[in-house]
Amino acid sequence: MTELAKGSSEVVVVRNKRVIFKDYVNGYPKESDMVVTYDATIHLELPKSDGGLILLKNLYLSCDPYMRGRMSKPIEGAYVDSFIPGSVISGYGVAKVLESTHPDFKKGDLISGSTNWEEYSLTTNPESLIKIQHANVPLSYHTGILGMAGMTAYVGFYEICSPKKGDVVFVSAASGAVGQLVGQFAKLYGCYVVGSAGSKEKVDLLKNKFGFDEAFNYKEEQNIGATLKRYFPDGIDIYFDNVGGKMLDEVLPNMRLQGRIVVCGMISQYNLDQPEGIYNLIFLLMKRVRMQGFIVIDHYNLYPKFLEMILPLIQERKIMYVEDTIEGLENAPAALVGLFTGKNIGKQVVAIAHD
Amino acid sequence: MTELAKGSSEVVVVRNKRVIFKDYVNGYPKESDMVVTYDATIHLELPKSDGGLILLKNLYLSCDPYMRGRMSKPIEGAYVDSFIPGSVISGYGVAKVLESTHPDFKKGDLISGSTNWEEYSLTTNPESLIKIQHANVPLSYHTGILGMAGMTAYVGFYEICSPKKGDVVFVSAASGAVGQLVGQFAKLYGCYVVGSAGSKEKVDLLKNKFGFDEAFNYKEEQNIGATLKRYFPDGIDIYFDNVGGKMLDEVLPNMRLQGRIVVCGMISQYNLDQPEGIYNLIFLLMKRVRMQGFIVIDHYNLYPKFLEMILPLIQERKIMYVEDTIEGLENAPAALVGLFTGKNIGKQVVAIAHD
Repeated sequence: MTELAKGSSEVVVVRNKRVIFKDYVNGYPKESDMVVTYDATIHLELPKSDGGLILLKNLYLSCDPYMRGRMSKPIEGAYVDSFIPGSVISGYGVAKVLESTHPDFKKGDLISGSTNWEEYSLTTNPESLIKIQHANVPLSYHTGILGMAGMTAYVGFYEICSPKKGDVVFVSAASGAVGQLVGQFAKLYGCYVVGSAGSKEKVDLLKNKFGFDEAFNYKEEQNIGATLKRYFPDGIDIYFDNVGGKMLDEVLPNMRLQGRIVVCGMISQYNLDQPEGIYNLIFLLMKRVRMQGFIVIDHYNLYPKFLEMILPLIQERKIMYVEDTIEGLENAPAALVGLFTGKNIGKQVVAIAHD
Repeated sequence: MTELAKGSSEVVVVRNKRVIFKDYVNGYPKESDMVVTYDATIHLELPKSDGGLILLKNLYLSCDPYMRGRMSKPIEGAYVDSFIPGSVISGYGVAKVLESTHPDFKKGDLISGSTNWEEYSLTTNPESLIKIQHANVPLSYHTGILGMAGMTAYVGFYEICSPKKGDVVFVSAASGAVGQLVGQFAKLYGCYVVGSAGSKEKVDLLKNKFGFDEAFNYKEEQNIGATLKRYFPDGIDIYFDNVGGKMLDEVLPNMRLQGRIVVCGMISQYNLDQPEGIYNLIFLLMKRVRMQGFIVIDHYNLYPKFLEMILPLIQERKIMYVEDTIEGLENAPAALVGLFTGKNIGKQVVAIAHD
């Protein structure tokens, strides 16, 4: 904390480092689409008279693929708002309550939820904040496995996939925050699980750490259709799709009867000016496949049930979880940008402060 | 019946007109892909010693879009076999039992089910035949509204669409055998229903005979996306897709939250060497849409339940049904070919004989 001024009334004013969104992005986002500013200040004390305010010290930020959509010009029907050029980036994170005049939060509380990409935030609408009750796991886990990524994997697998023991499951972007969990949920459920990822290191992680039955590096495969035939000689029951595009198109002819494709993300398409065409939808008909899109925010009523399941699994080390943590808010733009070139290995987290 | 020979043992031999499939088809099928032959003969009497045979006089044939797939080279994973070059075409139809040594069928019975495109058929495996119990509706209805098309509309709408009263429903190829019924089922259910078809005459039929709320001729629309916006200012809850391709792609951005797309057919794609690309699948995610393929043959356990519903509706004229009947087996190739250029208005039937 850089103390800038301390008047007689004991009001502490500090510098508030922030990541500002510059302007709408076309194509792959670049670090220069954001700027780290050092000129903002914030009062670290709340006016006593004004109830309902919460002053947060931000600790961990989550980098998530859906944020690419927020960097584009607003489009009709989008499920999240675009960032506002010139304003601070917002996302999902973990923070500590420094001061509160809100009855539900008190100094020292730890929260997860919507946070800004800045050192300190003053919030007047804490509806999106969840008080962290479980301090016996790393705090940063609340940006991922105990946050949106964990819930996405949980809802996607258990609620949307309609899994059956023995199902053959394919997960793309399988070492990512969501993919690694989906694969492990599927293994615990008694499925046969294959994952794809974009490097040898990620493939090793899938097989040796997360317990996938098989994994392959899609970047090294000349013919994805043939690769899928090799890994799935009898076809795929469940495709958990995080990437869309060409991989989805090649998966379609490899689906089994009554298969399910869960559309969780299409990261391969987010940075293209025009999406790639999908040519094999006839297999939805031929194989009676259900293809279902979902957004985790529709399912947060399940969060308590999810926590009840996931916490013991983490504590008993029945679920492994790998984070890729970058230190310092000034490195947040690089972390976010790296997500779209697959630079991260595991869940991409930015640590602003550790407590 | 052309009696060719009648020996002392009273065995009647007649000429058996047939439609022979010539060879696998690329692109749009042509009449010349089939040939009508007059040189086959058949004994119209069964050997007494051999139980389990049924001799059928074929009355009505059904022309169905799925038959296009059977005209192509066999492909892995197809849900119906290809026709065999040089062999008679088979399909769904209505026939009368002329003779039977099978315990379940007797002379005079009327049946629907798999039949060949010929005047008379001898069958040894009557598993696919359903005895017609309801003679108080036109016999030809068993090729369509009481047959596969009716069941397809029923299963697709009630089992796959998850309809709710007030849903906004869009049906493509809406005047076809399946579409006209789906639209009427949806109206009876309390939905708002719009249909697309390929001529003014079909559009009039949709609005004035089948009771669709709105209908348009897609061939006259310059910009299908804008047309859909006009007819569905608040979006589409259910898209019953019979056509696939460009229409499907334009529908996707117009889907409402939690919408459902039922993939019943993709007739616009069946005659293309390469299918068209679909570019808007991201809307499955953005709008949390479920897209589901189905094949009616998986659902025939529901046939009795379907009959129980549909027969009173027909008798009370609460469901209208339009057939396009062509007379004579020799015109069957033209009827089938016409299906793929939208020549038929309503269910395409071929009448070989009326009793």
